[in-house]
Amino acid sequence: MVQRWVFPPLLFLLKLFMQGTVMGQFITFEGIEGCGKTTQIKRAGEYLKQRRIPFIITEEPGGTPIGRKIREILLNKDSLGEINSETELLLFSAARSQHVRDVIIPALKECRLVLCDRFYDATLAYQGYGRGLDIDFIRAMNVFSTANVKPALTFLLDLPVEIGLKRAMNRISRIKDGRAEDRFEREDMEFHKRVRTAYLALAEQDKNRFMVINSAQDIETVHQEICSHLSLFMNKKL
Amino acid sequence: MVQRWVFPPLLFLLKLFMQGTVMGQFITFEGIEGCGKTTQIKRAGEYLKQRRIPFIITEEPGGTPIGRKIREILLNKDSLGEINSETELLLFSAARSQHVRDVIIPALKECRLVLCDRFYDATLAYQGYGRGLDIDFIRAMNVFSTANVKPALTFLLDLPVEIGLKRAMNRISRIKDGRAEDRFEREDMEFHKRVRTAYLALAEQDKNRFMVINSAQDIETVHQEICSHLSLFMNKKL
Repeated sequence: MVQRWVFPPLLFLLKLFMQGTVMGQFITFEGIEGCGKTTQIKRAGEYLKQRRIPFIITEEPGGTPIGRKIREILLNKDSLGEINSETELLLFSAARSQHVRDVIIPALKECRLVLCDRFYDATLAYQGYGRGLDIDFIRAMNVFSTANVKPALTFLLDLPVEIGLKRAMNRISRIKDGRAEDRFEREDMEFHKRVRTAYLALAEQDKNRFMVINSAQDIETVHQEICSHLSLFMNKKL
Repeated sequence: MVQRWVFPPLLFLLKLFMQGTVMGQFITFEGIEGCGKTTQIKRAGEYLKQRRIPFIITEEPGGTPIGRKIREILLNKDSLGEINSETELLLFSAARSQHVRDVIIPALKECRLVLCDRFYDATLAYQGYGRGLDIDFIRAMNVFSTANVKPALTFLLDLPVEIGLKRAMNRISRIKDGRAEDRFEREDMEFHKRVRTAYLALAEQDKNRFMVINSAQDIETVHQEICSHLSLFMNKKL
């Protein structure tokens, strides 16, 4: 018969073992401007809360104090002069490097689901295919900046650029506190079309990871689709 | 006999031709903390001014408005939390990417000598050999961030780490306006020794570009050595 005093050390060893092997799951939300990422990630969080699943919601590039400083540089191009595309890529990657190590990896180690608003697919889509920077270099950069942490599931909220930009513009016109509009929302239509095409190509190349959702649908329908995929995913993984 | 009106168009064509082919020269100053770079680069500038050679003095990471914002992040680690080594590398590279395209390339196109306080050798020495990040990735990153712009001449101001750090510490104790000391100056002795060894190895690998100066000597002697090398260099290149 097992003595009572055996349990605490056993539990301790089990915890140690689990910390080393069981990790949370990393889920990213991607898409062009106005695709509804921010709304949907928040709704997904509410769903996880109802199901009592531990999670965090985080975002790039602003998920750390350093990332928020970097985001200020990226948004204040008017006062600082035009940021070149290479600098932009390196700043996003710097924010990600800090974010992965300070926020994402610790949360995964605590066995939480991590819901992240944009990750490295955005860098490939925006800086690679959108701005035409070297794709191979960006892939090497992504490995370096993420310590090779990869999303297990990526929701691509897809919709036509015209609808997305119209939604984004409506949102901006509702913002009354004078915040600078996101610089990407000022880019031309062709740029956003390249980004959308790139996202769809990335999803095609990695069908196991990507879940493409038609986000031209209403918010509730998109939310329900995301929940049903999340539920399936968690039944498999958790 | 050549008509007078021929000269202005000829001069114009000559100028066009020169803009396309003749570039200024890019000269960097490297070395560990307390090696005297800042003093020597200023003195080298005075020497060029006397010789009426057009030049600029610039520095990394602070040579552009964006670079100065990045420098603030690098120096304010206490308020922003510890910056990880990968983020540090990416921030230095982002500052360089902007600096090369906004300051160095335009000055070279105007046929100026560019004297730069630290460049990519510093990244290899500090982040690569000092902090142990992947050297091959740093080399790829250097090509990307610099648009392949390379120094034609690099002065490595070399001296023992003990002397350099002592000088740097004396300088800090003279600063009374409460500025944060350079974070590198707080690193341990072994780190700086690795950096010095790396600099010397880089110089050994590229003897045509590097000029190693013993900067444990007094300021005037070091200055005279730099001037004589600069003079030789300009006689060859300009």
